[in-house]
Amino acid sequence: MNKIFKPYYAVIFTSTHSKQVEGYFEMAEKMEALAIKQDGFLGINSAKDDVGITVSYWQDLESIKKWKQNSEHLIAQQKGRNQWYSWYNVRICKVEKEYEQLLP
Amino acid sequence: MNKIFKPYYAVIFTSTHSKQVEGYFEMAEKMEALAIKQDGFLGINSAKDDVGITVSYWQDLESIKKWKQNSEHLIAQQKGRNQWYSWYNVRICKVEKEYEQLLP
Repeated sequence: MNKIFKPYYAVIFTSTHSKQVEGYFEMAEKMEALAIKQDGFLGINSAKDDVGITVSYWQDLESIKKWKQNSEHLIAQQKGRNQWYSWYNVRICKVEKEYEQLLP
Repeated sequence: MNKIFKPYYAVIFTSTHSKQVEGYFEMAEKMEALAIKQDGFLGINSAKDDVGITVSYWQDLESIKKWKQNSEHLIAQQKGRNQWYSWYNVRICKVEKEYEQLLP
């Protein structure tokens, strides 16, 4: 890669779900729509099987901190802990390198 | 967090699939079993919906490089490009912070 790569950040959220799913998908959708509007937001991907993985991408650590403390997001986090998740892990990562391929 | 955190690395592999799925799941399983045996391997999580996300965790960049160049893995990567994926993105990330919660 010859082009200049500017590091950015990824938040890897990995979770397993409890048996209570009520309200989860609506909230997940709402939170994604809200995240997109935040300063420093760059992108998000989610997939769910036995384990759920959501990776959101951010310009800097300050944006991640603000999003974590967003009042609506705080309510969602609380509900997640109380109802939806049986376990979760959050990793804050600096993206140092990236390559992408669109295939024919 | 008071305990000393030693940074490690994450490879975030995000993909969309072509319509050819033949052999994919067998290969994914085989590659996961092979990855686990590599030096520096720390863990892996996968989930697949509209998008597939696989995150593997490694002790250092050297381990990631070696895994990328593993001969069996090279064959799988080639098949992935030729058959299974319509797009993919690879991000090499330094995990700088982590917190985990097991819920009651």
